[in-house]
Amino acid sequence: MKIGILGTGMVGGTIGSKLVALDHEVMMGSRTAGNERAAAWAKAAGARASHGAFVDAAAHGELVFNCTAGGGAVDAVQAAGTDNLRGKILIDVANPLDFSKGMPPALLFPADDSVGERIQRALPDTKVVKALNTVNHEVMVDPGRVPGDHDLFISGNDAAAKARVTGLLRDWFGWSSIVDLGDITTARGTESYLPLWIRLWGTLGTADFNIKVVR
Amino acid sequence: MKIGILGTGMVGGTIGSKLVALDHEVMMGSRTAGNERAAAWAKAAGARASHGAFVDAAAHGELVFNCTAGGGAVDAVQAAGTDNLRGKILIDVANPLDFSKGMPPALLFPADDSVGERIQRALPDTKVVKALNTVNHEVMVDPGRVPGDHDLFISGNDAAAKARVTGLLRDWFGWSSIVDLGDITTARGTESYLPLWIRLWGTLGTADFNIKVVR
Repeated sequence: MKIGILGTGMVGGTIGSKLVALDHEVMMGSRTAGNERAAAWAKAAGARASHGAFVDAAAHGELVFNCTAGGGAVDAVQAAGTDNLRGKILIDVANPLDFSKGMPPALLFPADDSVGERIQRALPDTKVVKALNTVNHEVMVDPGRVPGDHDLFISGNDAAAKARVTGLLRDWFGWSSIVDLGDITTARGTESYLPLWIRLWGTLGTADFNIKVVR
Repeated sequence: MKIGILGTGMVGGTIGSKLVALDHEVMMGSRTAGNERAAAWAKAAGARASHGAFVDAAAHGELVFNCTAGGGAVDAVQAAGTDNLRGKILIDVANPLDFSKGMPPALLFPADDSVGERIQRALPDTKVVKALNTVNHEVMVDPGRVPGDHDLFISGNDAAAKARVTGLLRDWFGWSSIVDLGDITTARGTESYLPLWIRLWGTLGTADFNIKVVR
């Protein structure tokens, strides 16, 4: 499949590399074409990897991942172009972390909005599915790094798109337990979980962890 | 033990009733003495239950629970009186939920502060321990309602107070797995988890659930 990745950070690189390894044609997009990190990633990831501006990656992808920082996500998808993303599934992995007050980061908003909703409002004709944002980038593409049962969460307005993404995350990365929280407003829940994730990371001394819902 | 409960809601009532059943002398405090809900609770809970104003409950308790709403917690502990709480352990169960914009609630602040920290700042000579705020009130006092292993989290500046509370939550309620996240600022993590808890509640259709940290 042709897949676009918006963002050149560790999340985009890890997802992109895994998808290239699975024989997909992945283009990493950045604010400006020729971004050094995107070029370095594409060179390292192999022949099926390429890079360009946000618009190029969005046009390339049959499916697009948003892996930009939460605060810049709406600008990024708008730069990618409404038309380039129309009718497509966009998997939003971003978290609304506010590093402006130092570490640990705060949230950009107090759970009265979410990056997922903001992107959906900016792209009403795109099927935004929030997923993967509650685990470290390495766990995203290899849930077996955390032994035993643990859960991923998914949010989105389009049931068929969520079902498709649920299947892809299983087939591509090995996610066997994905909890559908509901419409895109439920992204407020998973995005607001990040401050707890960060404290658990500090306490456990490893990012190879996740949570399991027990009932 | 003599225990004070600040707050007359379901959380305070459930914790208070469980402690009375365990033979403790529990006083429920409210903004004004003679509160109807506090009086009804004390009447139902039995001879070891009593009620009064915040100051009365704080003076009564060797240990005090804050079970007020997050937005009113600092006012409540200030009304309870710095002197009445000096040197004591205060277990803060409150969550910073903002219902002013309707349901589901937002957070009062975007993880750049916490109710636990606000109370600790208001009561510098009290040992504030954040705990129990990540589960439903019935699960708080009976973790066996959720079968299998699952975790509670604790935050606070005083290591001895956290160790004491960890032992009490085990002995009183049966909590066997309590994760110490660190100082009271880590309450930002558990308090910001609430929007996810609320969405899980909606998805699962029951409040009898919890999370387990898997690593």
